[in-house]
Amino acid sequence: MPTGKREKRNKQFGEWFRQVLINAEILDYRYPIKGCGVWLPYGYKIRRLVTQLLRDLHDATGHEEVQFPIMVTETDLRKEAAHIKDFENEVFWITHGGLKPLEIKYALRPTSETAIYPMLKLWIRSHADLPRRLYQIGSVFRYETKTTRPIIRVRELSTFKEAHTSHATLEDAEIQIKEAIQIYKNFFDACGVPYAISRRPDWDKFPGALYSISFDVIMPDGRTLQSGTVHNLGQNFSKTFDIQYETIDGEHQYIWQTCYGISERGIGALISVHGDDNGIGLIPCLAPIQVIIIPIPHKENPQSIAEVCKKVAEKLENMGFRTEIDQREDLTPGAKFFYWELRGVPIRIEIGPKDVKKEQVVFVRRDTFKKEACRISDLPSRLRQLMDQMSIEMRERAWEWMRKRIYRVDSLEKADELLKKRAGILELLWCGDAGCGHEIEELVSAKLLGTPVDFEEKIEGKCVVCGKKASSFVRAAIAY
Amino acid sequence: MPTGKREKRNKQFGEWFRQVLINAEILDYRYPIKGCGVWLPYGYKIRRLVTQLLRDLHDATGHEEVQFPIMVTETDLRKEAAHIKDFENEVFWITHGGLKPLEIKYALRPTSETAIYPMLKLWIRSHADLPRRLYQIGSVFRYETKTTRPIIRVRELSTFKEAHTSHATLEDAEIQIKEAIQIYKNFFDACGVPYAISRRPDWDKFPGALYSISFDVIMPDGRTLQSGTVHNLGQNFSKTFDIQYETIDGEHQYIWQTCYGISERGIGALISVHGDDNGIGLIPCLAPIQVIIIPIPHKENPQSIAEVCKKVAEKLENMGFRTEIDQREDLTPGAKFFYWELRGVPIRIEIGPKDVKKEQVVFVRRDTFKKEACRISDLPSRLRQLMDQMSIEMRERAWEWMRKRIYRVDSLEKADELLKKRAGILELLWCGDAGCGHEIEELVSAKLLGTPVDFEEKIEGKCVVCGKKASSFVRAAIAY
Repeated sequence: MPTGKREKRNKQFGEWFRQVLINAEILDYRYPIKGCGVWLPYGYKIRRLVTQLLRDLHDATGHEEVQFPIMVTETDLRKEAAHIKDFENEVFWITHGGLKPLEIKYALRPTSETAIYPMLKLWIRSHADLPRRLYQIGSVFRYETKTTRPIIRVRELSTFKEAHTSHATLEDAEIQIKEAIQIYKNFFDACGVPYAISRRPDWDKFPGALYSISFDVIMPDGRTLQSGTVHNLGQNFSKTFDIQYETIDGEHQYIWQTCYGISERGIGALISVHGDDNGIGLIPCLAPIQVIIIPIPHKENPQSIAEVCKKVAEKLENMGFRTEIDQREDLTPGAKFFYWELRGVPIRIEIGPKDVKKEQVVFVRRDTFKKEACRISDLPSRLRQLMDQMSIEMRERAWEWMRKRIYRVDSLEKADELLKKRAGILELLWCGDAGCGHEIEELVSAKLLGTPVDFEEKIEGKCVVCGKKASSFVRAAIAY
Repeated sequence: MPTGKREKRNKQFGEWFRQVLINAEILDYRYPIKGCGVWLPYGYKIRRLVTQLLRDLHDATGHEEVQFPIMVTETDLRKEAAHIKDFENEVFWITHGGLKPLEIKYALRPTSETAIYPMLKLWIRSHADLPRRLYQIGSVFRYETKTTRPIIRVRELSTFKEAHTSHATLEDAEIQIKEAIQIYKNFFDACGVPYAISRRPDWDKFPGALYSISFDVIMPDGRTLQSGTVHNLGQNFSKTFDIQYETIDGEHQYIWQTCYGISERGIGALISVHGDDNGIGLIPCLAPIQVIIIPIPHKENPQSIAEVCKKVAEKLENMGFRTEIDQREDLTPGAKFFYWELRGVPIRIEIGPKDVKKEQVVFVRRDTFKKEACRISDLPSRLRQLMDQMSIEMRERAWEWMRKRIYRVDSLEKADELLKKRAGILELLWCGDAGCGHEIEELVSAKLLGTPVDFEEKIEGKCVVCGKKASSFVRAAIAY
């Protein structure tokens, strides 16, 4: 099924994204501090639904929501060597309280391991305290030296959901990693956003982790966006922060830890993947307004149209659909169509004089612009059906689009050529050697996303660099 | 109706408060940075309900939720002279990004006027853009030099709801002030927390405001806690930040502004006002768990008790009551009573072998410890009734307690004597002169909360200081 035009969205994605953020009243990026944006009312409503989805998924799987302070002491931040090494150039430092210098500097947390783990040391005593799964949603800060972009690369990540889990054994931590991957799959599936799951190469893992797994989304311009990450921290931080528990046998052991995060990039992917040249797209379950009713005025009988609109809106609201009527008198129906398409409202209902006579309404789907008449008596059931169908089709269409942008190539020349065109994700045979990995990155001027985790496959063939036996595919892409 | 013992809560309030915060798993104050606490899972659930209540009250009255960055530039923070003068000693300053000094310093917002108003300048163009009512819930930061106390006086206020409104005229701003007061009354009434509303003396108003109105709560130890404030900002900030709108006649005018805030102090008041020596108290609508079911085990027939508990829990859950069964096997019923009383769960249901036979349960109210048997078939309706009654009684009891702690006194000696005993709020006749006001503050070693806004009264009598005709009462109290 065809969708709206996507030429501008795909070919001038950066410009399209910037424009929809401000025009659809999602985020205003003109704040006086670089890399910091203001969530506008409509965008904040999307954020509410997305964070509620994250809360539901975490609450349902034994995670407990907490909230830690935004400041971390320099001492704690510096404890884990690999961690501070990676973040040192990206930390905002608080040096003064009032007019006086602080005795010890505070950092704005770049991520919350070093805030949370000193407290875990106080809370975890025995095996009975394990497992412990905590999460929080809030701001973290990175003094980005790369070009900042609204939502995609910012200095205040204002919607950072991070989970931190503690376990008695490595096996338990591994099970948790699998659960985390499942939670993130459920999250992106609910958003209708397709993803590739890759285990990052060792040289690109989270500082301090045993290994890192990432959810990458191909954005409309063919670049990938790292939209969720899952890390097995092993005992690295628990040894640094001395977090031990007493086993049933009375021994003291360091705990095993995992952590995983999703930021507002999830929202960026959501609105872009389903967007088109007319504006953003929203899957129905994450749309602040699911149905917008637009009266098509008529001189003879404006009153009856208004009444029918109201009756329909009440009916739909009672059925649990988030519904609004656009009653503005200074705008034409056409201007209203434009306004709500920009904001990605999934279903438009038009009610004109003919419809009133026939006791019907006209539906228009935001994704396909397909029109359909429906008797008012059939409305709620048809609408439920339509939204379910739309959600499935939006998700499938997005997956189809993404699958076409994953290429298996057997030469670096071909890879380079495709990446120059921003074709998407390339999968190349690789021996697993870091040297060969770096060579691929250099020769195709791209990042390695890592090895596929989303499927298992028997590998036959040779490494594209050294020609030795390949141990896996490795993914390369131009990443944000 | 008598309640649980309140001796410790009232006489050693500071200690009681610290203990319930940690023991009831609300907030852990052992974080390595002074004045910063960690919201624990149970406390965070209370926080969710309280912030949802605030959201509902603001959304229903035309307020739109937004989210601004946490950092403010030094330039913007310094623009309004009175504002920076008051906050200068209390601001955390960010001076470095990574290893390099920043070109311009950033402040952690101590409140968000200076973050929000430069953006209002971009958003407000004409009378059609007014009124505009925005709010956000998040963290603000104060480098407190006074003794910090968990929730009551902190360096990161992590639950700060602030609303900022823009209007075409002073009259509209005044109407907004009345609405804000009503919203806050509704908030504290829903919490069952009594309050005195006072217009702060001019020397104690919000820096930059025309005037400030405060909601003060008398805490169990007789000290008052400023728990909500409402400010009419006039055109002071709009002139500083050059926020103008075009009138219908094409003239350019500065907007009129108000702002009002409530922090986690609201939660501090809630759990303390309804608390007793056994733990915190929660009004049913703000309790994360409204009903805790405790099986009273019996050797003969443990299975049937477990089944009835499950059946009752399902029934109550389906009726919308937040219900849990405490199935822990390593705790006696008595230990479980203690555990849930500490956490303020409004209703305990005990189910033992006798109850199973009689097809009944036993209710225990958290506030009065009154017991009552109820047939299982009558459960949902009786429970709804009981909770409504309980909410009304808790609120009335709290108001009665507070009213007894508001004294009208006609001499400074009497006032001093009462305040030394931490009796509560004193109301004294006052001529309105600042000199006399300061003299009262000095002679009774207390703060003036200001003049009553919660009632109007004909004033007859003389100022307690100068003996001239009094224009109003003024309230004095030992404030947190």
